[in-house]
Amino acid sequence: MPLDFESATPLHVQLRNLLKQEIFKGAYKKKIPSERELMEKYSLSRTTVRLAISQLVHDGVLEKVHGKGTFVKERPIRDWLGSLSSLTETITKMGMKPGAKLLFEGIVKNNDEMKKILNTEQIFIIKRLRYADDIPIAIEKHFFSEDIGKKLQLFDLNKATIYDLLEKELGLSLWKAEQTIMCHPISEEEANYLNLPSSQYALQSKRINFDQNGKPVEILHSVYRPDMYSFHIEMMRTREMDRSF
Amino acid sequence: MPLDFESATPLHVQLRNLLKQEIFKGAYKKKIPSERELMEKYSLSRTTVRLAISQLVHDGVLEKVHGKGTFVKERPIRDWLGSLSSLTETITKMGMKPGAKLLFEGIVKNNDEMKKILNTEQIFIIKRLRYADDIPIAIEKHFFSEDIGKKLQLFDLNKATIYDLLEKELGLSLWKAEQTIMCHPISEEEANYLNLPSSQYALQSKRINFDQNGKPVEILHSVYRPDMYSFHIEMMRTREMDRSF
Repeated sequence: MPLDFESATPLHVQLRNLLKQEIFKGAYKKKIPSERELMEKYSLSRTTVRLAISQLVHDGVLEKVHGKGTFVKERPIRDWLGSLSSLTETITKMGMKPGAKLLFEGIVKNNDEMKKILNTEQIFIIKRLRYADDIPIAIEKHFFSEDIGKKLQLFDLNKATIYDLLEKELGLSLWKAEQTIMCHPISEEEANYLNLPSSQYALQSKRINFDQNGKPVEILHSVYRPDMYSFHIEMMRTREMDRSF
Repeated sequence: MPLDFESATPLHVQLRNLLKQEIFKGAYKKKIPSERELMEKYSLSRTTVRLAISQLVHDGVLEKVHGKGTFVKERPIRDWLGSLSSLTETITKMGMKPGAKLLFEGIVKNNDEMKKILNTEQIFIIKRLRYADDIPIAIEKHFFSEDIGKKLQLFDLNKATIYDLLEKELGLSLWKAEQTIMCHPISEEEANYLNLPSSQYALQSKRINFDQNGKPVEILHSVYRPDMYSFHIEMMRTREMDRSF
């Protein structure tokens, strides 16, 4: 993807997208090239380069360190645990383009624990590879009751935002979630999808989503690229803590 | 640690502690021996074995699966993100005995970013290995201003709960924390302390603790054994979500 000087897309937007792609592919591990180097490499004005970089700083992809240069920020995708959000929302908030590719949909067998939680005879799984700006960053496995699964199957799951379907098409309202976050080994298949070495550990989460009546409607297992994803939270001290902290 | 039939400590308590030690050392990966096997192995009554196991289920270390047996629960230590807590509190809540060993205390150089956050000329670090029931489960690196560090140095940091010292001895009140959770490679030194293979990834967190005036008083970097530690949170959907979820 070289820059297109004929395109209607402004050059600073093109440069921003190009640099982001390169960063997420691992081209620059820490420091990115200087303004002058970028100007020369792409035949651009200083203003264009500055605009692209300041936008990437705003996006949380780069950070400027006084007197040292501009650096790739660690783990550009920050998942804010302050409220229940979808990955689509998290990626969008970071100024990136969310994407999905359906890997598998259908009935999964032998899952007594999930059947109990979702109160269903059969478990329906939707497994998708998730992208941020076309870079694979996560695998999401959504588990539903057979009933919900069969309804979701009618839509194009390569395109749809699953939570939109749940809410707008199926009339379900997600209200509350319980989430566990851990660091866990990934399978060889997952490693291949995420361009990670096999036998690697990844950031993972398990979540149960409840509707407004407190009924579990979905179990979501997610595997995130450990170099690109982190969770963030702000915590207050509660009264209980005053005694035992 | 064999069982001591002469001890004043009840046998079911001894068995519980012994099993917990063995589980945390990795002796049983999934299923633990049956009641009958434990009765024979340790010459105990069924009542004693049952008491020990039901306590371990209550502690969150084991779980019974109907018709299948008793299993080691994944990641027995669950860190609840609903409020700001210390590791001492988290371990105590899980029914385990917290412990600490001082690995290093002193001035760390070259840390401009931390100096800026803590508004200090020098950074003082307290690095401790943390235990749950005498099993090493985490490494905590506390970073303070030189001023606070010098005061903490006067206490026995192998024994003290650092937050107790901050509150009761130094008159500081912790009010709010910002925490980032990720999956990150560990150093060879960390791997040795935590009995993990080197080149392994671990669950890690970075936290800034603020006092009641919003002033950062501590930066805490923690490395947790990925097979024993996880974070838990309950999230509600907020109004903002209704538009974009």
